[in-house]
Parts: sequence; structure tokens; C-alpha cells
Amino acid sequence: MNTEQKSSPNVFMQAPKITRAMKEDKQGHRGAVIWFTGLSGSGKSTIAHGLEERLFEIGCKTYVLDGDNVRHGLCSDLGFSDEDRRENIRRIGETAKLMAEAGLIVLTAFISPFRSDRERVRGLMPHGEFLEVYVKCPLEVCESRDVKGLYKRARAGEIKGYTGIDSPYEEPDRPEFVVDTSITTLENELDQLVRLVKERDLIR
Amino acid sequence: MNTEQKSSPNVFMQAPKITRAMKEDKQGHRGAVIWFTGLSGSGKSTIAHGLEERLFEIGCKTYVLDGDNVRHGLCSDLGFSDEDRRENIRRIGETAKLMAEAGLIVLTAFISPFRSDRERVRGLMPHGEFLEVYVKCPLEVCESRDVKGLYKRARAGEIKGYTGIDSPYEEPDRPEFVVDTSITTLENELDQLVRLVKERDLIR
Repeated sequence: MNTEQKSSPNVFMQAPKITRAMKEDKQGHRGAVIWFTGLSGSGKSTIAHGLEERLFEIGCKTYVLDGDNVRHGLCSDLGFSDEDRRENIRRIGETAKLMAEAGLIVLTAFISPFRSDRERVRGLMPHGEFLEVYVKCPLEVCESRDVKGLYKRARAGEIKGYTGIDSPYEEPDRPEFVVDTSITTLENELDQLVRLVKERDLIR
Repeated sequence: MNTEQKSSPNVFMQAPKITRAMKEDKQGHRGAVIWFTGLSGSGKSTIAHGLEERLFEIGCKTYVLDGDNVRHGLCSDLGFSDEDRRENIRRIGETAKLMAEAGLIVLTAFISPFRSDRERVRGLMPHGEFLEVYVKCPLEVCESRDVKGLYKRARAGEIKGYTGIDSPYEEPDRPEFVVDTSITTLENELDQLVRLVKERDLIR
């Protein structure tokens, strides 16, 4: 053993890496991002949590990223300007990517109204690892639900730049899947999504 | 069924949530953050990857966050000013927190030289969920290793604000653990860290 090695016993040891593939093999499913996009009130969060439950039952490791756990933490420094919204989606995309690399099936529930933002997130990941699900629902229906009373406030002009009212929602061009929550039941939607996950070979 | 329910079949259905505790129960270990801090060249990454291997062998779900997967993605908009470094550590902390909530044991390997930054990250998480590990190693030893040749460049004045050279490293006051990589072997360090993880009841 030479002097250099003596004084720094670890520097020449490359710790063997546990690869993503090894993790995926062991747990029996791949990491991926299922990105739910749609108007406020379309049902993104409900579907994401419902799908998480189904995936949990069949042994998948999952996580739901939504406004609740992101806006007060990772993105707490961001407001609602166009630039901040773009950065919000970018960070969510990067975080979802890291989680997918860890082997999780990440379910994100954000309006994410701009096509370019969503495409940018898609571009972060290898093909097949980002599934865009358009949670389609007519504005009138979303507005009639108005769970948080925000549409009413946006109509009254108290909130500016509200998606669907005075800010556009850009429908996905080629989403991996579309659910229309104004016509199907939650159970039916979830059946279809579980089928999608299986068809895409995310689960062995 | 009234008209309102007909037009929006899901809005009144609260999808049952899969809690963190349910995930942890099923996989047999808790989510947590093991935060390695120390000078460049002290061995943080080597130890983090080594510990990941040990934890993988005993069935834990893990992820290593380090410069490689963060600086080019989530924090690609940040430079090396004091403010940007602070924001870098904040985002890493928030991301690690989300991953721990997903049930992962997250191993972070960043110099994170400032005590206040590390304490802020600790403050994000419930007590016992953040384990600070000081990877101690004399500057001379780190500098003699100089794997990336950055100490040399910092000494030559080509890099400004390099930790240990012209920017301070603030040692942890009360870290959960200290490893001194100038005197112990990697295997010995890893044995101790696995013991720490078990003692802290992260694994059932």
C-alpha cells in the first residue's frame, strides 16, 4: 500500500452502483410519470389518487405530486405569473423525473395548461416513460362543480389569469390517454388507466 | 340521482388516499433523508452509493441525490452565488422531503457548507426523519485526493468561492453521525451507517 492510499483509503474505491434497472427488477415494475392535465375541477386529483390506490393494491410504488405538496414547498417561491407558472411545471417535471429514476410511478395532477410546458417535461424523459393523460371535461361542468369557489371569483374578476376564464387551456395534441370525466364513472376510468399502465409494460 | 351528480359523476367522490404509513408498512421500512455533508473529496458520494448498495441488499427503497442528477436538471437555472447555493440546497431539501414522503430512504451527497442551510432542511421534516452525517476529512487529505482537479484550480485562483479554500465549511454542531474517511475503511463506515439506520428504527 503506498502512502497516498494510506492517507485516503476510499478515494480509489468506486462504490458499486445500484442501477435503476436493478431496482425495477426487484420491485417488479418500472418507474414512470403519468401526467394528468386538464381544467381546474376536471377531476385530475381524484383520478390520480384513485389510480394510486389501484396501483398500490397490485404492489406498485407510487407517489402523487399535486398542488398540496408542491406549492408550499419546492415551489413556494413562485407566484402565478406566466414565467413562474412555467418554472413551476419545469421543477415538477424535473422532480417527477428523479422520482421515476428512483423507480416510482409518479402521478402528477396539475392544470399545466400550456402545451409547450408539457412537451418540455416529456422531453426530459426517455420515450415511453412519460404518459400524458388528458382529463377532459367541459368548462361548464368544471365550473358547475367549482369545489374551491375559484371559478366564481375568476368570473367576478377577483382572480386574474384563471385557466378557462381569462387564460387559455391548450388541449394535448397526442396524449397517451383521454378520460372524459363528464361522461364516465371513476371506476371505469380507473379500469382503463390500469389497463394502459399494463399495456405500456410498466408492470411485469 | 340528481342532475348535478349526473353531469359530474366524480365530484362528490373522495378517492380514498393511500397514506405514507400504508406504503411504509407494506415495504417494511420508513422514508427518511440521510444527509451527507463535508468537503469536496471527503467521500460523500462514495459512502452514499455504498450505503445504497447495503440498503438495497436488505430490501430498502432508496435514491441517491447528488450533483450529477440535480445540477443539470432541477437546479440547472442556478449558479454558484451565495444566494443560488442556498436555493440549490433548499430545492434539494424539498425534493428529498417529497421522496421521503413517498417512502424512499434518500441519500444526499452535497458539500452543503452552511449550517443554516442544513438546519433549514432539517426543519422541513418531522423529528427523526433527517439524519445528518458529517463526512469528516482533513482539508489536506481532500486536497491531495483532488479527484476532479478543482482544488488545484481554486488554489490557482481560477475558481472563486471554493469551499475550504476561499469559502468556509461550517462543521455540523450535532450531526446524527460522523465518519472520518481519513482513518476508517469504507466497509467499516458502511457497517456503522447500517447500524445507525437500524437503531433509528427506519427498518422494521
